[in-house]
Amino acid sequence: MYANNEIGSVQPIREIAEITSQHHIIFHTDAVQAIGKIPINLQTEKIDLLTASAHKIYGPKGMGCLFIRNQGNLPHQGRFIIPITYGGGQEFGFRSATENVAGIAGFAKAIELSYSEMKETTIRLQTLRDNFISWILENIPESFLNGSRTHRLVNNINVRFTGISGTDLLEKLNQENIGVSVGSACHSKSLDVSFVLTAIGLPENQAGSAIRITLGKKTTTMQIERVKSVLKRSVNELRLEKKNCEKTNSNP
Amino acid sequence: MYANNEIGSVQPIREIAEITSQHHIIFHTDAVQAIGKIPINLQTEKIDLLTASAHKIYGPKGMGCLFIRNQGNLPHQGRFIIPITYGGGQEFGFRSATENVAGIAGFAKAIELSYSEMKETTIRLQTLRDNFISWILENIPESFLNGSRTHRLVNNINVRFTGISGTDLLEKLNQENIGVSVGSACHSKSLDVSFVLTAIGLPENQAGSAIRITLGKKTTTMQIERVKSVLKRSVNELRLEKKNCEKTNSNP
Repeated sequence: MYANNEIGSVQPIREIAEITSQHHIIFHTDAVQAIGKIPINLQTEKIDLLTASAHKIYGPKGMGCLFIRNQGNLPHQGRFIIPITYGGGQEFGFRSATENVAGIAGFAKAIELSYSEMKETTIRLQTLRDNFISWILENIPESFLNGSRTHRLVNNINVRFTGISGTDLLEKLNQENIGVSVGSACHSKSLDVSFVLTAIGLPENQAGSAIRITLGKKTTTMQIERVKSVLKRSVNELRLEKKNCEKTNSNP
Repeated sequence: MYANNEIGSVQPIREIAEITSQHHIIFHTDAVQAIGKIPINLQTEKIDLLTASAHKIYGPKGMGCLFIRNQGNLPHQGRFIIPITYGGGQEFGFRSATENVAGIAGFAKAIELSYSEMKETTIRLQTLRDNFISWILENIPESFLNGSRTHRLVNNINVRFTGISGTDLLEKLNQENIGVSVGSACHSKSLDVSFVLTAIGLPENQAGSAIRITLGKKTTTMQIERVKSVLKRSVNELRLEKKNCEKTNSNP
C-alpha cells in the first residue's frame, strides 16, 4: 500500500521497490490513496505493478487501472497475470468488456490535473492539515493523532479522543452536516473496530474512539474553523453525557 | 441468449424459462441485446438470472447488471453465486467496489426511457428494417438475409453477398462514413469468420461475405436511402474488381 486509506501513512515504496528489484522479486503497490497526491514516477521507481482508482482524484467513479511494467522483473511482459473475466479480449486480453471510453478519458484527465495542481495543493493542504492537527491536540484534552505526523498524506487527519465512541462523534458531526469517517469508508457501515488501528497497536477501546477527517482540494480555512468549533463542542458533550450516565448508574 | 448480437435472432426465452422452471432447473439469460428492445417482464417470465448492459440502450458504458430472483428456483436467495472480486462488500457482497453512482443512475434512466419509448421505436424501426431488407434482396443480386426474418431484433440486419468479402465491403462503406460490422463488434478486429454464421450452417466463404447493419433509434429514412445506394454500388464494384482480377490471373 503506497499510502494507507485510514491513517494516511506513506510507505517508503521507492526504497522497497529498489530492494525487491535487486532481488528479482515482483513488486505490486496499491496506490489508490497515493496517486495524484504523492509524485510517483514510474520511470524511476522500480514498481512492477501498480493499481489506482479515478474517484479518489476527482475522476469518474467506476474506473480503476493496473500498471504493468513491460520490462524488468516481469516475465513474459506481464502475461503471467490471469484475467478474472473473459470474452471480447479488450485491453490486451486482461479485461474483456466494452471499454468505458468516457471513464477512461475522465481518469486520464483527472491524473493530468492532479499532477499539474499537485505542488500547489500539497503546500496548501499540508498547512491546513498541520494547523488543524496542532489545534486539536492543543485544544481538546486527551486527543491523540493516529499514524505518522510527517510521513502522512496531505489530506488525512485521524484522531482519537479518550473515552468517547468514534461512531457517536461521527453522528453528532453528521447532524451538523460535517462528514467524517470511522474505520475505512468502504466498511464504515459495519461497526467493527478498525483493523488498521488495532494493527498499529491500539487497544480496542482506543481504536473505537477515532475518527478520520479528510480534506478536499477545495476545503477552506473557514470550513475548518467551523469543524474545529463543532468538534470541540461535540467531544465535550459526549464526555459529559458519558459522565452523567456513569453517575446515574452509580447512584440509582 | 435472449437475442443474438450478430444476426438478431430472438429466442423463445419465455417458453424455455417455463420449462426449466417446471423442472427446477436454474435458468440464466444473457439479455444484453434484448433489454430495452423486447418487453421482458421479470414478474411473469420465469427467468432466474438475467444479465444486461447499459451501453446497448444509450446508457453509460461500463455498466452491467445481474438480476437474481429472490425466490423460486434459486437456493439461498441466490447466495450460491460466488463473487469474482472481494473487498468492501458492496452490492450485497456480490461485487465489491465503490459503486459508480452516476453510472447506476444513468443505467436506470436508460431502461426507463427505453421502456417508455419501446412501442413507438419498435414500430418505426421494424418498418425501416423490413423495407431495407426487402430492398436489398430485390435490388442486389445474390444477396441473402442471415437469421430469421420474423424472430428478429428490430434494429438488426445481417446480409451476405455471394462472392465478396464482408471485410472489404466494410472498408468501402467506412470510407463513405457508414459504419457496419463483420462478425461480432467485440471481435471485429480479428479477421476470424463469425462463429455464429458458421454455427447456423453457412460454409466459411458464405459466412465471410456477410455484414451487419444496425439501426439506431435516431436512424432516418434518408440515411437508409443513402446507405442503399452506397451499398449497391460497393457490392457491384467489389464483384467487378474480383472479376477483373480473375481475368488477369487467367490471361497473364
